[in-house]
Amino acid sequence: MNIAVIGLGIIGGSYCKTIKKHTNHHVIGVNRSAEVAERALSDGAVDEIGTAESLGKADLIILCMYPGACIDYISANGKYIKKGAIVTDSSGIKRAICPQLEELSREFGFVFIGSHPMAGKEKNGYEVSDDSLFDGASFIITPCGAPPERVEQLSDFALSIGFGTVKITTPEEHDRMIAFTSQLPHVLACSYVLSPSCPNHDGFSAGSYRDVSRVANINSKLWSELFLENREPLIEELDILIKNITNIIDSIKNNDKAALEELLEQGHLVKQRLGE
Amino acid sequence: MNIAVIGLGIIGGSYCKTIKKHTNHHVIGVNRSAEVAERALSDGAVDEIGTAESLGKADLIILCMYPGACIDYISANGKYIKKGAIVTDSSGIKRAICPQLEELSREFGFVFIGSHPMAGKEKNGYEVSDDSLFDGASFIITPCGAPPERVEQLSDFALSIGFGTVKITTPEEHDRMIAFTSQLPHVLACSYVLSPSCPNHDGFSAGSYRDVSRVANINSKLWSELFLENREPLIEELDILIKNITNIIDSIKNNDKAALEELLEQGHLVKQRLGE
Repeated sequence: MNIAVIGLGIIGGSYCKTIKKHTNHHVIGVNRSAEVAERALSDGAVDEIGTAESLGKADLIILCMYPGACIDYISANGKYIKKGAIVTDSSGIKRAICPQLEELSREFGFVFIGSHPMAGKEKNGYEVSDDSLFDGASFIITPCGAPPERVEQLSDFALSIGFGTVKITTPEEHDRMIAFTSQLPHVLACSYVLSPSCPNHDGFSAGSYRDVSRVANINSKLWSELFLENREPLIEELDILIKNITNIIDSIKNNDKAALEELLEQGHLVKQRLGE
Repeated sequence: MNIAVIGLGIIGGSYCKTIKKHTNHHVIGVNRSAEVAERALSDGAVDEIGTAESLGKADLIILCMYPGACIDYISANGKYIKKGAIVTDSSGIKRAICPQLEELSREFGFVFIGSHPMAGKEKNGYEVSDDSLFDGASFIITPCGAPPERVEQLSDFALSIGFGTVKITTPEEHDRMIAFTSQLPHVLACSYVLSPSCPNHDGFSAGSYRDVSRVANINSKLWSELFLENREPLIEELDILIKNITNIIDSIKNNDKAALEELLEQGHLVKQRLGE
């Protein structure tokens, strides 16, 4: 296949490197900054540097940009895409972009299938991309009306480059679950490190500080967009979280050891049942 | 030295194994359950199984029990301790036990120095103890009036068995910082996994879920005691956290992208300044 990867940040860069590592596909890298694209070429992460016009030879196009930018890009350049090519994204939200991309796919005659590689780092940019970022990770697919055989094709591709599992779901279910599994930890991390105690943690901290604070080193522009485009499920999860924390605070304020133990024990049991 | 380790759970067991790995000290293991003590003996983690009477030959006694149990144990068995021996604990709280242990040290003629090894796991018990748990970790000392040369002796001992740094502080400062670095992440983890979404996370989750939820597999009895004995600093940190989360929620509810970006950017900057 000819595969075009649009946007060579951490996700796009990792796609290129991973595809080159596992397959013989021809990779076309498209990026706003020529410098990063040149670097990817000299790294062997891409076989050629492309432009929007290069889309015409791609069998698979992977959009690795901010959610809103995916729509803008395809609106402007959809005319170059080969009929029947698969276009997928890599966005952390789905309801806010899948319907528009599905509409564009009908307009331009390509096949849109939403996807979201469940992997990342607390840093951004091509320089932290790597060819093992997706190893064993979950690859979430939102078919959005694409023919089953094309969905299977994308699923097989994901497994062929090292993803561990494929999860097929709807944009609604995706967004509801991602609010919990990914967005909530990012809100928490930022809220946590804003304590006046944080700058003095050195010498007093170990694994639990490191883990909760890790993703606070956030790309504030990207995550603001992700949070606002997923407002309802995220607010719902945040309200549940505030309620659960408040229950624990109340039991501590009331010096109610039985209630506190019961709340902590519930957390313990959830993890134990999940075998984690 | 003859070193007595009282309580062979994850911390006590790890002390024994670590001491045997790095030094030639003679280790006496004291444990309520004979079965675990026998296991430690056959593992070579301890050189002998002791009883309270064995305390008389120990130059260093490390208490690895629940905070309240440390006081009960020394009240009952302080009479066996050799004059001038160092007694230290390993508790995650200091104000609630250091004054009492200091008083007992004067009564029985030993030297009490509070300490807290900043390491742990999300599981408990001797079976998860290991000889590298403390590698590179911080060893916090609260001198509690002990002579400087004895504090130095304990500090040197910690470094000799692989701790990376020693932090000398007061019980007050310790408890205030631990509320943030350790207790808050445990409250968060338990509150987080109580979302109804949690049991369905599989396939939708990656590193940020794993990290925030890790310590939810909590020892509810131990941590209830730790939280309640450190109520004021913990409630203060929890109130700050709730306020920070609420600020983010409000900006999302108001669809205020500038405010949201600013809040997330603050988190990013804290981590960036810390070089993490």
